[in-house]
Amino acid sequence: MNAGRRLRAGALIRLFGDWRPGRGDIASSIEGRITQLVCDGRLSFGTQLPSERDLARELGVSRTTVAAAYDRLRAGGHLETRQGAGSWVAQGDTQASEAATPWYPVGTHDEIDLTQAALPAPTTFFADLLARAAPAANRYSEGHGYYLYGLPELRAAIARRYTDRGVPTTAGQILVTTGAQNALALCLAAILRPGSRVLVEHPTYPNALAAIRRWGGRCVPVDLDPAGWDPERWREAVREARPDFIYCVPDCHNPTGLIMPEDCRARLVDIARLSGAALVVDETLTDLALDEPSPTALSRFARDGMLLLSLGSLSKVFWGGLRVGWMRGPEAFIARAATVKATLDMATPVLDQLIACQVLADLETIVAPRRAHLRANRAALVETIARSIPAWQTATPAGGISAWVRLGAPVATRLSEVSHLCGVAITPGPMFGIDGSFEDYIRLPLTLTNAMLAEAMQRLVRAWIAVRDTRAVKPRSLVGTV
Amino acid sequence: MNAGRRLRAGALIRLFGDWRPGRGDIASSIEGRITQLVCDGRLSFGTQLPSERDLARELGVSRTTVAAAYDRLRAGGHLETRQGAGSWVAQGDTQASEAATPWYPVGTHDEIDLTQAALPAPTTFFADLLARAAPAANRYSEGHGYYLYGLPELRAAIARRYTDRGVPTTAGQILVTTGAQNALALCLAAILRPGSRVLVEHPTYPNALAAIRRWGGRCVPVDLDPAGWDPERWREAVREARPDFIYCVPDCHNPTGLIMPEDCRARLVDIARLSGAALVVDETLTDLALDEPSPTALSRFARDGMLLLSLGSLSKVFWGGLRVGWMRGPEAFIARAATVKATLDMATPVLDQLIACQVLADLETIVAPRRAHLRANRAALVETIARSIPAWQTATPAGGISAWVRLGAPVATRLSEVSHLCGVAITPGPMFGIDGSFEDYIRLPLTLTNAMLAEAMQRLVRAWIAVRDTRAVKPRSLVGTV
Repeated sequence: MNAGRRLRAGALIRLFGDWRPGRGDIASSIEGRITQLVCDGRLSFGTQLPSERDLARELGVSRTTVAAAYDRLRAGGHLETRQGAGSWVAQGDTQASEAATPWYPVGTHDEIDLTQAALPAPTTFFADLLARAAPAANRYSEGHGYYLYGLPELRAAIARRYTDRGVPTTAGQILVTTGAQNALALCLAAILRPGSRVLVEHPTYPNALAAIRRWGGRCVPVDLDPAGWDPERWREAVREARPDFIYCVPDCHNPTGLIMPEDCRARLVDIARLSGAALVVDETLTDLALDEPSPTALSRFARDGMLLLSLGSLSKVFWGGLRVGWMRGPEAFIARAATVKATLDMATPVLDQLIACQVLADLETIVAPRRAHLRANRAALVETIARSIPAWQTATPAGGISAWVRLGAPVATRLSEVSHLCGVAITPGPMFGIDGSFEDYIRLPLTLTNAMLAEAMQRLVRAWIAVRDTRAVKPRSLVGTV
Repeated sequence: MNAGRRLRAGALIRLFGDWRPGRGDIASSIEGRITQLVCDGRLSFGTQLPSERDLARELGVSRTTVAAAYDRLRAGGHLETRQGAGSWVAQGDTQASEAATPWYPVGTHDEIDLTQAALPAPTTFFADLLARAAPAANRYSEGHGYYLYGLPELRAAIARRYTDRGVPTTAGQILVTTGAQNALALCLAAILRPGSRVLVEHPTYPNALAAIRRWGGRCVPVDLDPAGWDPERWREAVREARPDFIYCVPDCHNPTGLIMPEDCRARLVDIARLSGAALVVDETLTDLALDEPSPTALSRFARDGMLLLSLGSLSKVFWGGLRVGWMRGPEAFIARAATVKATLDMATPVLDQLIACQVLADLETIVAPRRAHLRANRAALVETIARSIPAWQTATPAGGISAWVRLGAPVATRLSEVSHLCGVAITPGPMFGIDGSFEDYIRLPLTLTNAMLAEAMQRLVRAWIAVRDTRAVKPRSLVGTV
């Protein structure tokens, strides 16, 4: 009933982190730990859990104990078991289902949501853009509405943008997609074979990891230093892993905000070319370099005989509610990706594409104030953290919408749970890594205005004090103390 | 470099149909036949062709001949070969790439496009709907824009519609998708395991077949009689194939226009329930039953312990350029499908969802004149065919946007090629079947107004005469004769 991955007992226990079966009700403790992993997204729905026998052996507890834990998970709706087949992570109840939604307006409850690194649309422009797109929309509504490759005028506008940046591009090299995530899914579907290895920066964007796994790829992490990309490390990773696919975010990398230096770019493209792997470059944040423009696009260094694909989107520079992204690549590959698109969603909406044309025509006007806004927020965030929680280390991000904050202790998951109780939602570092890495990091967004930032930081301070002072105590018992 | 299926020599030769290696340039003849299969979509990009050796043996020609054919396909860009790995169908050139786009405005060249069964938006409503959605769009643009499950008001409106039809539904049971194709892809991704068998009506909707294959499913056809669904045949198919997934279009079935009779519905649901397979019911055309309303929804017959999913969309009742569809199912499954959606396209655009709310609020006003329009077109099409080409048999479709026309001879693919030369594009029957079935059928849409229908039919008559009178002659040589 599912296409999820199968988790071995050892891998599950690695996700347990510093959890150890103590005295008292061990089954309940196991249940609680697994529920937490499901709720923070590290155990995704459809993942097959190890058998009771295997998990009991690895944990050094009785099989009856694990069976009791699984029973309770089933009762809570977090586990589905098929006789003789195995047990899979399931969706709990409506509450949990709502919590899995990536965004909620702050107004609906009292929690401040710091899990999303995205901004509202520039409202003053929006009504205007809609009105400007309306005549074309009416004209298009007289036709059929399906444009597998995208509207010709949008393909041309996107191609012009690449050309203006020094990457000569024709409209035929552009496929319009329903956001950049859609573009990544199309690349994966067209390129991956069963068991293909995919090189990713580590940390990296969680939905990229999820998509790679969804399409059957095996993620191979290449660590980013605080200083960034180390070409020698990439060369070695390529040699060892022999990947079919390399996913990389050179501009305003998510979550670190790093920008790949000019001299590293040609070398990385060269490494990909020699390996024969497709190089998929996520450039959704390129226009949000905050101090100086992003360096030369990687596509500039592409050479014949290699497959280099560039992904873009208006979600970060304009608005995520407008689902318009794109892929740039060789025409033959664009055609292949389009046949995949026909099976996934047929086409991207016409109206959103028409608004995208308006946005692209005026992009600098839209993005310049956004960058100024993010610069101010960045300064405020770094300063507030340094003042409120000096133990945390925050490298100033060179671009993007988030900061990667080092806690100084491997407590990110616990901090995220306690923060939730304190009225602020944060994303723990392991969401951006593989197999539980980055327990000493959290990501914070650059989206908060001063007043909201002050309130959010007050709540984070309360959560941090609770976690720091009560490492040995179960998080739930902290409610009364903060 | 691809995730396509692998085609054995026997299967390729079945697709060749009535082609036989004659005298003269056999390599060129093989090349031409494969090119045609690529161009009409029956050989999809990424499909791995049999080895030269295997194909030569099955065809009873020399390996050199097949090698020459493959060489020319490579030169034309229709084939990519990786040394030691095999050969895959590739995208030819820009022309071919444009032709793969599902729709082109008739105005751009002289061809009449009968391959699409879809209507323009009701224009008088469109401008009005856009204006009505604008205030809400402005409000939403102040937020983040990502709604993994869909906007709450749209989920509620869709749920109300099911409830009004006698299928009590909560908003939590609805997932908004980027069109119904997106909903089908999510179901497939969440349910199929490698090698899962999927029961489909035969004929059926081509993009459903493509999506099933894309997600690794094996299509098992269950023949539809001219009279429709035979429950005994379904019971037997379920017993033999033991499917994980059943895809069915009970209302205004595409391409036949059949509507499943009331007494068959409960039986089919029961067969699915006993089999343990998920039953996925495509109801995108339900509101376009042309003579009387569609019978009781299959969801009414669902019982505990089975997974029945209903797919809907506004593409057919309103406009395909508005990419809004949905899935109705148990909340636990909706949550699982949403986690898949996060990896495919993150969310459906806000603006399209707001317009969808307006459309649903006024659906009867929009659909009633559309049905009247289709009824008139249907009468004109059936009458015109009977008068112009009496050899063709057209059962009057009970609903939907297309008619399934029997030619009386297995020449659909050839007719589609000759029609193209005569200035009219049609979809040959094999697009709707598996392994080259339905060579004696074509699908024609109910979308043409009288004047355009008369012109289209004149061109079809010319193509038909050419095909009928020159069965032994290669299609390309017909250009001068018509």
